[in-house]
Amino acid sequence: MLIFHLKSPQSVNISFVGAGNVAWHLAQALEAAGHKILEVYSRRPLAAEALCERLYEANVKRDLDFSHTQAEILLLAVADDALEEVIDRLILPDYLIVAHTSGAKSIALFEQYPYNYGVFYPLQTFSKGKAVAIEQVPFCIEAPDEIVRERLIVLARTLSRHVQLISSAQRRVLHVAAVFACNFANHLFTLSKDILDGESLSFDLLKPLIRETIEKALSIEPKLAQTGPAVRKDTQVITQHLDYLRHDPDKQRIYQILTESILNFDT
Amino acid sequence: MLIFHLKSPQSVNISFVGAGNVAWHLAQALEAAGHKILEVYSRRPLAAEALCERLYEANVKRDLDFSHTQAEILLLAVADDALEEVIDRLILPDYLIVAHTSGAKSIALFEQYPYNYGVFYPLQTFSKGKAVAIEQVPFCIEAPDEIVRERLIVLARTLSRHVQLISSAQRRVLHVAAVFACNFANHLFTLSKDILDGESLSFDLLKPLIRETIEKALSIEPKLAQTGPAVRKDTQVITQHLDYLRHDPDKQRIYQILTESILNFDT
Repeated sequence: MLIFHLKSPQSVNISFVGAGNVAWHLAQALEAAGHKILEVYSRRPLAAEALCERLYEANVKRDLDFSHTQAEILLLAVADDALEEVIDRLILPDYLIVAHTSGAKSIALFEQYPYNYGVFYPLQTFSKGKAVAIEQVPFCIEAPDEIVRERLIVLARTLSRHVQLISSAQRRVLHVAAVFACNFANHLFTLSKDILDGESLSFDLLKPLIRETIEKALSIEPKLAQTGPAVRKDTQVITQHLDYLRHDPDKQRIYQILTESILNFDT
Repeated sequence: MLIFHLKSPQSVNISFVGAGNVAWHLAQALEAAGHKILEVYSRRPLAAEALCERLYEANVKRDLDFSHTQAEILLLAVADDALEEVIDRLILPDYLIVAHTSGAKSIALFEQYPYNYGVFYPLQTFSKGKAVAIEQVPFCIEAPDEIVRERLIVLARTLSRHVQLISSAQRRVLHVAAVFACNFANHLFTLSKDILDGESLSFDLLKPLIRETIEKALSIEPKLAQTGPAVRKDTQVITQHLDYLRHDPDKQRIYQILTESILNFDT
């Protein structure tokens, strides 16, 4: 019996510009979902080679001229500050859909193109050494053209259960919110560890409490999960803490302002 | 064959003042570890009854006169602001060790006692409906008397693998650090959700990213895990974000100050 290896109707031919953390995870996840990665271009050819080695039949692409590509969708998974230059230098055929994967950059970067462009943004942080549960990653899709939009949605749904249309304006707001919830929260951990380091106490002591606090905030609602001296209006403890921080004006100011913000938010 | 039910040499008779979240979890964990809870006193007798119903042979205690108690250790698991008054009103026999479970209160509250007192502080947040992996909770022990200290350490080790001597001064520092890493981080989630609410975006979108960010911060080191526009010194994005927040001076000020702190900390 002959077995014909036919391309399944859902399977999409995809090429990548970029071979960093996002491309690394996305390309492999797309392949695992039944799609075909054809080409990988990177300004660092070694990175493109390393990624191609993890893929079944992808080839390293040496330039940004995609005029003869067999791909149907080209994903631009490059650093935010390289995206504009890449888009300027791309040579694309009409039939190719191009989408960037950036959370920070507007779809307006593509305005030189007629219609076949979009955004395909996985809202997650990726590191090469660490597996990601891709089916739980929210995918934020944007495309002015209805057919392009539908194709990007269908593609994202082969990876994740959480696919949503998000405009560039909404993506900007998501980014501001993520700076608060992720970047700034992380910095508070840094300051917390710094306080403990100063007294030779291990940050490990606080980790179970941090994990439990965050799980509570995410499972109920952060406002309802708020604890501590500020929300209790415990001015005695607040004064003691500010006094303890008197030799560290940066931490003292942050303590003061976040305490005020909790007090104001509560009312 | 007669089976004698003897008290194991490790088993300790314990009574509680307080029937809130800490007492609720601690009493049941101590019983599960082979100890005997004899009495529970609470200023809310119904709470004491509810806890006693979860325990094998504990009785509700109606007053703070423990002069004839069979307990060896009395744990004071009451609200911080009630602790001083409880200690004033307690009547204790000489043989009874008394320890409070507060992270915020000094051991100096016991200075009226001769020697048999200490602190037995589980560094975790407890809610009645939610199980806690007690063996992973750091227990912070303090006692001026060596024998008392040893007894509290041995007791804590029957519950947890993480038992440490922590002075009142160190506990105060832990508390300040926990305010940053837990209370303030939680408030940043509240602000983040507030930003998303304003644009009808669901906070659920950010939850996978928050979980991953925090896991990274706790598994490597928060300073090394720092990402975002501030640590990248991306002034263009920072300016855009501050402009977006111009109608919300509280969030704008927090954005500004935490961004400055990240920039300063990095150098």
